[in-house]
Amino acid sequence: MAKEQKSEVTADALSEALVRRLPGYYRHLREMEAAGIKRVSSMKLGRRMHQTASLIRQDINTFGGIGRQGLGYDVRELKEKIGDLLDLNRGHEMIILGAGNIGTAVAGYASFQQNGFTTVAMFDVNPAKIGTKAGGIPVLSMDALEDYVMAHPVDIAVLAVPKEQAVTVMERVQKLGIRAVWNFAPVDLQYDQTAMTVVNVHLSDTLQVLSYQLAHMR
Amino acid sequence: MAKEQKSEVTADALSEALVRRLPGYYRHLREMEAAGIKRVSSMKLGRRMHQTASLIRQDINTFGGIGRQGLGYDVRELKEKIGDLLDLNRGHEMIILGAGNIGTAVAGYASFQQNGFTTVAMFDVNPAKIGTKAGGIPVLSMDALEDYVMAHPVDIAVLAVPKEQAVTVMERVQKLGIRAVWNFAPVDLQYDQTAMTVVNVHLSDTLQVLSYQLAHMR
Repeated sequence: MAKEQKSEVTADALSEALVRRLPGYYRHLREMEAAGIKRVSSMKLGRRMHQTASLIRQDINTFGGIGRQGLGYDVRELKEKIGDLLDLNRGHEMIILGAGNIGTAVAGYASFQQNGFTTVAMFDVNPAKIGTKAGGIPVLSMDALEDYVMAHPVDIAVLAVPKEQAVTVMERVQKLGIRAVWNFAPVDLQYDQTAMTVVNVHLSDTLQVLSYQLAHMR
Repeated sequence: MAKEQKSEVTADALSEALVRRLPGYYRHLREMEAAGIKRVSSMKLGRRMHQTASLIRQDINTFGGIGRQGLGYDVRELKEKIGDLLDLNRGHEMIILGAGNIGTAVAGYASFQQNGFTTVAMFDVNPAKIGTKAGGIPVLSMDALEDYVMAHPVDIAVLAVPKEQAVTVMERVQKLGIRAVWNFAPVDLQYDQTAMTVVNVHLSDTLQVLSYQLAHMR
């Protein structure tokens, strides 16, 4: 009885920093599982992930419900738990808006498929691209976006259009009721935060962080 | 006299979270400057950046040496200060290792050039690509990497090779004395942290964070 009352931190309570670390855990645990490793200590996992053992223990305690049992964590159990938190155990269907270099790179990125993220279609305004394939995915006319999504509901829209088109495309995505946007356009989009969630990949920003780090190396 | 003793936080003391926000500041300030805006309050800047006015004030105080003068911050002065911190006011030369989809997307990304990051060459192992151009940049043989860098020192190496090649390519980059690596391969690279700095863009990780956010939306 007492055991059942033990409070488990809900996933919603995870800090942003911890959420950002989850995919790294998942990646390392999957590699370990593939290599036939059954159990791992916080020290070994930390060394592999360039983190301290105490951060690893603290993170894993936060998930709740993972026993250490003296011999380290069960690799498979921990991987499944993190996969559940990341919701990787159901499939996600994605569309890519913009069939330029970035859109094509995303379409061709094999490891998304491995995690259950399937790109079902791409959309572009360029008549020369419409009807072709990019990264193996059919490119449809951007004009067909609404009809397509009405007929084939999707989970995630990847925004890979030029900056100038990002705002209007985002408005169309929001109207269609798509709830998740992976944004590669270098703009901070306005959206209804109760209806959608957005993750930005601002490539220029990460390059500037590298420039900062290079300039301020000890 | 008292004024001169006021301690100014050095750039090395900026927190990782603040460093990650700097490119966003720079982007918005540049857009404002281009739109002819001379001064901005912490409230207006915050609204634009989806941050609180108090965080903005706290960040800008941390940089030091920026007066508020009642009427808000001087847009140009603040932009230049942040550009200095990010070391954007000198040029950076980059090479891209791997002329696949990601490497080509990086090569073709116009806004890097705008911030003084110039891609001078790409390298690949695929004979069909060597001698061609990708994203406007000449693709050389990966075998020529050492000779090229010896003759043309570069600031930044972009790692856009498949996961399997990332470790050996990273070793070659480190031997060449290149001090900054922008890594797109989905591996956590080992390197001498006193000699190099690395920023990882793990695309799969950011997609998984989006999946987490979608699953845990209120």
